[in-house]
Amino acid sequence: MKQTILVVGGLAAGPSAASKAKRVNPDAEVILFEQGEHVSYGICEVPYYVGGTVREFEYLNPFDPSKLEQTKGIKVKTGHSVEEILTTKKRVLVRDLNLDKTSEVRYDRLILAMGSTPRTLPVIGNDAQNVFRVKTLADGIGIKKFIQEKNPKRCVIVGGGYVGMELCEALVNSNIKVVLLHLEDYPMTGLELETRKEVTDELVRKKVEFRPNQIVAKFLTDNAGNVYSVETESGSFATDFVIVSIGVEPNTALASGAHIRLGSHKGILTDERQLTSVDSIFAAGDCCEVKNRVTGRWMYIPLATYASRQGRVAGENAAGGSAVFKGAIRSIAVKVFDLEIAQVGISSLEAQEAGFDVVKVQVRSDNKVHYFPGNTSIDIVGIADRRTQRLVGANVYGGSGTVLRADLIGFAIQQRMTVAQMSQLDLVYSPPFSPLWDPVLILANQLNGKLGKPRL
Amino acid sequence: MKQTILVVGGLAAGPSAASKAKRVNPDAEVILFEQGEHVSYGICEVPYYVGGTVREFEYLNPFDPSKLEQTKGIKVKTGHSVEEILTTKKRVLVRDLNLDKTSEVRYDRLILAMGSTPRTLPVIGNDAQNVFRVKTLADGIGIKKFIQEKNPKRCVIVGGGYVGMELCEALVNSNIKVVLLHLEDYPMTGLELETRKEVTDELVRKKVEFRPNQIVAKFLTDNAGNVYSVETESGSFATDFVIVSIGVEPNTALASGAHIRLGSHKGILTDERQLTSVDSIFAAGDCCEVKNRVTGRWMYIPLATYASRQGRVAGENAAGGSAVFKGAIRSIAVKVFDLEIAQVGISSLEAQEAGFDVVKVQVRSDNKVHYFPGNTSIDIVGIADRRTQRLVGANVYGGSGTVLRADLIGFAIQQRMTVAQMSQLDLVYSPPFSPLWDPVLILANQLNGKLGKPRL
Repeated sequence: MKQTILVVGGLAAGPSAASKAKRVNPDAEVILFEQGEHVSYGICEVPYYVGGTVREFEYLNPFDPSKLEQTKGIKVKTGHSVEEILTTKKRVLVRDLNLDKTSEVRYDRLILAMGSTPRTLPVIGNDAQNVFRVKTLADGIGIKKFIQEKNPKRCVIVGGGYVGMELCEALVNSNIKVVLLHLEDYPMTGLELETRKEVTDELVRKKVEFRPNQIVAKFLTDNAGNVYSVETESGSFATDFVIVSIGVEPNTALASGAHIRLGSHKGILTDERQLTSVDSIFAAGDCCEVKNRVTGRWMYIPLATYASRQGRVAGENAAGGSAVFKGAIRSIAVKVFDLEIAQVGISSLEAQEAGFDVVKVQVRSDNKVHYFPGNTSIDIVGIADRRTQRLVGANVYGGSGTVLRADLIGFAIQQRMTVAQMSQLDLVYSPPFSPLWDPVLILANQLNGKLGKPRL
Repeated sequence: MKQTILVVGGLAAGPSAASKAKRVNPDAEVILFEQGEHVSYGICEVPYYVGGTVREFEYLNPFDPSKLEQTKGIKVKTGHSVEEILTTKKRVLVRDLNLDKTSEVRYDRLILAMGSTPRTLPVIGNDAQNVFRVKTLADGIGIKKFIQEKNPKRCVIVGGGYVGMELCEALVNSNIKVVLLHLEDYPMTGLELETRKEVTDELVRKKVEFRPNQIVAKFLTDNAGNVYSVETESGSFATDFVIVSIGVEPNTALASGAHIRLGSHKGILTDERQLTSVDSIFAAGDCCEVKNRVTGRWMYIPLATYASRQGRVAGENAAGGSAVFKGAIRSIAVKVFDLEIAQVGISSLEAQEAGFDVVKVQVRSDNKVHYFPGNTSIDIVGIADRRTQRLVGANVYGGSGTVLRADLIGFAIQQRMTVAQMSQLDLVYSPPFSPLWDPVLILANQLNGKLGKPRL
């Protein structure tokens, strides 16, 4: 009998899983259910659509449902919500949202890719019509439309994380005055203090009004139901609209209803094959936790790269293949105006918590030969463990060309290299591209000195 | 008694060795002999000085002799040629070129860093005053002065290697019409055919007249002793001046006179500590051969990166330390106008010669998310060994941001990773920096498929 593979969720991991499953087993019937109207390969570009860098939202939607059906042979059901998994019967209960009708669909293998939901502020007015979030393509389209129609002058962004940073740039590029409210002293919680201070400086240089230590108390709305002021415990911020960007949470109601095991971050736990604790059910993407390859601990880190990889692995295994996803060191990058930032591996705080004997160094270097036109500086904050002599994490920030160097450091972390081994790396050199001693080698040499062992 | 460390050669490896030796043993007397008038940390920027990208030649000369003496405590003797090593007496015979006087100087440790000499064409007229080479700072200054004073319109460059490429750009930027003569069908001998064709296309786009398969027969000179035409076996090329850039050869007369062991490429052979076959004599830089970390074979690869590293290792060990240089995979990069090129590891030809079961793939990808402004394409030609499932070499070429990706591939080669392991690399992603699947991962996945083993 023909194998039936059902996929729940059409944003990032879902289409990736469905496509891979169909490639591995072309005879299988692969059906993807998505409750929204769009099927897409990720929404990382939404801030760039809002800011005008990416001009047409169609660019963000490379696989519309019909294309996915025609070119990949996957049946795509948008406007369909999977409401329950009947594990013993190996069926799911699906609601057609347009017809408001439910039906049962049988599966041989089920892949869960429900993604995540943006956190909301538990305050009055948070559901006003000029309060936005940035998660789906529809959210991006909504903000863009609002800007084009209402021509707003001021925005309050709540939350100074990765998406908050990209939104600052998008809105400043749209000639909107931005106030950024953040819970802590500096934006980008989780990065090193050095990086966070530099980010703050860049925001200030670009005329973003950064307000630290702000806890939103309420939104004041006018008669038309629009927020005109954000009230915090220490201030009042008049605005034309609000974007709330305070992180996301895994969508796991469906999974927990089926008694699938969740982790301490409330995401689905899987093995390396992306198999959940329940027979024949795989999971991938933002609804899952990810194993940290440095500490061995589970983390919740909803990123398109991991969603896409997990999706492929889940899809391949659901179709009878044998693939693994080894976890992640955590590699993240973001552009904050003219500042490139990346984090690879764990933070100094996480390193302490994991019991490492932390040694931290900061290296400032050139990105190219120093008198070469277009040279910018690059800062690397390296976090090493004295006992194993290994690098376990780094923050990298600076001008153009900074972020791609972070991958080299991340590579060394993944390979569990000692800093002495790192200092033996053979890297290219030519004046237009790098200084004679690449910043990565300078980092290795400095750590090598500081860790107090003879250089290799 | 105070230890005496002598260093022969002041271009790249020599100053690096001398500085390191003095740092490791501040009590040692470190004397550096250089026969020319300049002491420098490398001459890779000379083409960029000729082309005007780097405006002042002083930039290229960060350690003038007095500065090296004052800041580092090294005695620097420019205009001094070391003519003989008296190994049994542990002395060298040094000629003061200004006074034309020789004297013997005792050493405890000797570091040889005599560098290399550009090859010349064995043809009549090759010593004419408008025939240049590009090796030393003095060469660069000579060409620049010639251009400024004579305002030449045409140049024939003989030799389409790395330096020849950089010179093409330098001269075109100076509004000089360039004819490039090369021995083979395509420039950049040693790279893959795909890369060499792309380089040729870029040269043609930038109006360089590339002439393949040219063997220079003679230079025709006028009464003033200037070359006005380059005659090859198949053509005649009128010109205002000539630059010959056909590679370099190690300077080893001093070493062979002392019966120091040389390799098949005529460079000095050393162990990992940069010690030669003769007691207390170290060597570093372009006068040495380098162990290839992929094949284990010796190669001759005169690059500033290796010179600088070997210099540090030789200096540290000469001063009583314990450092090693593990050899090189060969990592080279060059910018040819708007095309970035890098080679990491060995070529497909070298791989065949080394007995690998060669599998070659070419991947064309985006450097960023494809609809992002400033995106360019990147091509990777990957060379793998079917038996070990490992990548052994790659050529990378494309627009801005291409070359730094080569280092990731080089890293994988150095780590002897299988392509399946490579495909598990956790790399950063953000639309301004990379596509969701980094080109390096696409390469790994494609090779993985082609090598015909199950994916990890």
